[in-house]
Amino acid sequence: MPDTEYSRLHISRANGVATITIDSPPVNVLDAVLMREMRCFLFSVRADESTKVLVFQSADPEYFIAHVDMTLIDDPHAFDEFVRQAPAGLNPFQAFGELLREQPRVTIVKLTGVARGGGAEFVSAADMVFASEGRAGLAQCEALMGIIPGGGATQYLSARMTRGRMLEVILGADVINATTAERYGWINRALPAAELDGFVDRLARNIAALPEGVIAAAKQAVPLADLREGFLRENDLWASLFARPAAEKLVRGALKADAQTKDGERNLEDLLRRLDL
Amino acid sequence: MPDTEYSRLHISRANGVATITIDSPPVNVLDAVLMREMRCFLFSVRADESTKVLVFQSADPEYFIAHVDMTLIDDPHAFDEFVRQAPAGLNPFQAFGELLREQPRVTIVKLTGVARGGGAEFVSAADMVFASEGRAGLAQCEALMGIIPGGGATQYLSARMTRGRMLEVILGADVINATTAERYGWINRALPAAELDGFVDRLARNIAALPEGVIAAAKQAVPLADLREGFLRENDLWASLFARPAAEKLVRGALKADAQTKDGERNLEDLLRRLDL
Amino acid sequence: MPDTEYSRLHISRANGVATITIDSPPVNVLDAVLMREMRCFLFSVRADESTKVLVFQSADPEYFIAHVDMTLIDDPHAFDEFVRQAPAGLNPFQAFGELLREQPRVTIVKLTGVARGGGAEFVSAADMVFASEGRAGLAQCEALMGIIPGGGATQYLSARMTRGRMLEVILGADVINATTAERYGWINRALPAAELDGFVDRLARNIAALPEGVIAAAKQAVPLADLREGFLRENDLWASLFARPAAEKLVRGALKADAQTKDGERNLEDLLRRLDL
Repeated sequence: MPDTEYSRLHISRANGVATITIDSPPVNVLDAVLMREMRCFLFSVRADESTKVLVFQSADPEYFIAHVDMTLIDDPHAFDEFVRQAPAGLNPFQAFGELLREQPRVTIVKLTGVARGGGAEFVSAADMVFASEGRAGLAQCEALMGIIPGGGATQYLSARMTRGRMLEVILGADVINATTAERYGWINRALPAAELDGFVDRLARNIAALPEGVIAAAKQAVPLADLREGFLRENDLWASLFARPAAEKLVRGALKADAQTKDGERNLEDLLRRLDL
Repeated sequence: MPDTEYSRLHISRANGVATITIDSPPVNVLDAVLMREMRCFLFSVRADESTKVLVFQSADPEYFIAHVDMTLIDDPHAFDEFVRQAPAGLNPFQAFGELLREQPRVTIVKLTGVARGGGAEFVSAADMVFASEGRAGLAQCEALMGIIPGGGATQYLSARMTRGRMLEVILGADVINATTAERYGWINRALPAAELDGFVDRLARNIAALPEGVIAAAKQAVPLADLREGFLRENDLWASLFARPAAEKLVRGALKADAQTKDGERNLEDLLRRLDL
Repeated sequence: MPDTEYSRLHISRANGVATITIDSPPVNVLDAVLMREMRCFLFSVRADESTKVLVFQSADPEYFIAHVDMTLIDDPHAFDEFVRQAPAGLNPFQAFGELLREQPRVTIVKLTGVARGGGAEFVSAADMVFASEGRAGLAQCEALMGIIPGGGATQYLSARMTRGRMLEVILGADVINATTAERYGWINRALPAAELDGFVDRLARNIAALPEGVIAAAKQAVPLADLREGFLRENDLWASLFARPAAEKLVRGALKADAQTKDGERNLEDLLRRLDL
């Protein structure tokens, strides 16, 4: 599909770098449309040898990808196509993350705002993440909805930080700011807001300009961890919690309390904790 | 055993959080009594579904758990009961750590002072550790007694930091302050002293308030590493060094030089290095 | 070979600590002579029970080991002896790193300047690294020469940092300063320049003074990772890139543009990026 036909993604290309700007107001919820377009792009770029580096950013400086669309609770078939398309052993959200993690291109997330849940899992599946100090944040807030992350976070985070920090992130369910995310190993670096664009642009251009074969060799020199067993375990645990009444009640309560609006998302964790079921 | 019958532990419970205050003056040495009571508590809480989170703290802001009681050298049978009770393949100190590490509850250490040796191993066996900047410290000072850590540290530290940092901790044998411990991955975070209580209290309450099943699922999603082979190797190495004359001489020298007193413990490392054998 | 007969190494010994000062002007290039002498020293010290700790430093505060000698391109047989001596499955540069990594002694690098390429791999193969804030730097700049690191870096770095940071180091190919290297886990600590000597001297003396058997036990308690499969993969990828014309052109271009001189090395990365082939 031509770059100009995406409705939620703006794609620009220069010197081997494709910059993908996510633009799905009000808060870039990961709904079926955004997921379909991103999936389509990630598939197409796998075969595009002229593109060396992918930089993902958000049109909204406050939100990168909010999280998976909560209205899915009322439209359980919205993701059916993704279930059918997912490789054996992966649920559709895990398959989505793996499509990013297994890219032959170098994938970089430039994070200026907040990414939660499935949005944070997308971030964790990228090769590199650079985030804006004092502004960017990452959260796996699924626990506040009665579930655990089900799109790969338990496995991705375990590869990046100690088990104790992973448990703090998942069970504490708070937004982790860029500085702490750097210390925990979740991201490459937290950078001053004013330096982030310049740093990522230069890095992406430099990598795209490397002689032929270098990117592929570096990626192959340290193969990706095989996470299939972990994904199965994560999915089983996630699915059994999602089937309980608490999860549905919490999600419905959150939507009624203005989740998925610009205001409601500002402190989604407190919104979820205050729900009176 | 009822909470009020412990002599070295004060236990308070509220909202699913049990707070265990270690109080064994002068410096919370890990002697047979403290070990027995902690063991008893950790066993009982495994079956107590109403308790979700355990917070361990010390009544003495300067010392968390000093280290294993050095007078054991004159009472080699003091720990016999623990030898009998330890699962196959674990020495009693490893078994003690594993009783904490394998808790189904979420275990949090709030560290305001220093923990050395077996005390530091207790800290490392907890799920999460938050420590007071400028005050808290951790040390594996066993090398200065002619041995290596024998209660799990070689394995616990290797899961949390690079091998080079682990070797620095064990062979350098100095107190590692909270800031460095955070950088090394030994603890979750170093926090300003004034914020530590509030941070841990809020985190513990939030986790205890999570919907049913979430804690268990998060813990199961990333199973504990199997450390049995490492424990066997650690124990063999530890035991062969402990059998040498140097260890006994150093421990006796340390006791004579006021180890296990409030003053002597202030700089236990220098006390041990100055011993003239 | 007696300590005084080395031409590129100054070796001093005191209290169980051997201090090895690399002195091969103008920038400590890792040429066949330096490699032969270091190899000879590392072999001899394996059997020297009286030496407990090795501290490596540079006579030039600006450069530790620049990188492997680029003039190798015109003298392809210069390293033949190392090829013959390398254990099966290792190329000569990997074998060189392993000779350091597998030392029974405690190995410490004191880094005041920059180490790139094979020099950075030497640093990564040491047990511990302490570096000068604001002055020291590490770089795997091989990508700018059309290759990936071939002397162990892909494996050594993967054991010390997340895959995303390893890819940033190798593909970004920039100098990583001491502070970032500490955060990434590449080194133990960045220290203020004025404190570095005192810190390392004290640590080395303290470790060398430990009772008999403690060093060996600590090193054995957590065995070295088996990297053979990774080394084979790294070498295959490195060799296939090195055989392409780009690598030779870039190396020749760099030498013509004053690489391997004090000035040319100051910003070797930009020098390489500006080459017009």
